[in-house]
Amino acid sequence: MEEINRRNFIQKGGKLTLAAGVMTLPAGIADAPGPLGKLFVHHVFFWLKEPASEQQVIRFENALKELVTIQSIHQFHLGKPADTRREVIDSSYQYSLLTLFADKATHDNYQVHPVHDAFRKVADELCSKVVVFDSVTLE
Amino acid sequence: MEEINRRNFIQKGGKLTLAAGVMTLPAGIADAPGPLGKLFVHHVFFWLKEPASEQQVIRFENALKELVTIQSIHQFHLGKPADTRREVIDSSYQYSLLTLFADKATHDNYQVHPVHDAFRKVADELCSKVVVFDSVTLE
Repeated sequence: MEEINRRNFIQKGGKLTLAAGVMTLPAGIADAPGPLGKLFVHHVFFWLKEPASEQQVIRFENALKELVTIQSIHQFHLGKPADTRREVIDSSYQYSLLTLFADKATHDNYQVHPVHDAFRKVADELCSKVVVFDSVTLE
Repeated sequence: MEEINRRNFIQKGGKLTLAAGVMTLPAGIADAPGPLGKLFVHHVFFWLKEPASEQQVIRFENALKELVTIQSIHQFHLGKPADTRREVIDSSYQYSLLTLFADKATHDNYQVHPVHDAFRKVADELCSKVVVFDSVTLE
């Protein structure tokens, strides 16, 4: 667990949990408001094969939390669908992973990190569908 | 243009441009690294009916830049597809708008803001498809 602990998570009853005392942004709102600046946005949506399986949910959530220990990720948000329903909203996925990188090269390094390879194996096994949107800043 | 200028953009040859001297995060990387914290992520992808029409591109980009002047948005990223191509990547859209809100209530207020109503009319006119993913923080 050392690789994981070094960043943000601790193991609690088989589930990885954000370590107490880790600095997070209070309500996500400590940063300067406005444009996020020039960066590479990598947003991934996951559909589990068996979302009702508690064992698969725990395995997948742990895999996500291991994934975000990769140091080249600048900031990240692990999400679940919000309680919003309109025709244009896709809320059919189970998990979202938003990651912000300094640039494409940093993102490309992340894609070949051994922790990412391990994650991909779990995702291939547990997910029926994965959709990725990569965006660069509009000039 | 006063409503727009008050935040981040100035008009330059018919196109809204980030004002010089506006503080942005250098390379998007001034904030503390790690989890973005507890927030509401609203990520929207847009497909233009006529992406080759320069006039429609300028109108839509200006509409996006007006939209993000809404003060209840904490942070945002206006994006275009990155130069990444893999089977799981959807790069068929023309624009992405990532917005971070303090919570769902703040997002809900944004949805009924008059500037958002005006944006929706432009999007209805110029877009063939809009897809929204709303996510809350995984506990």
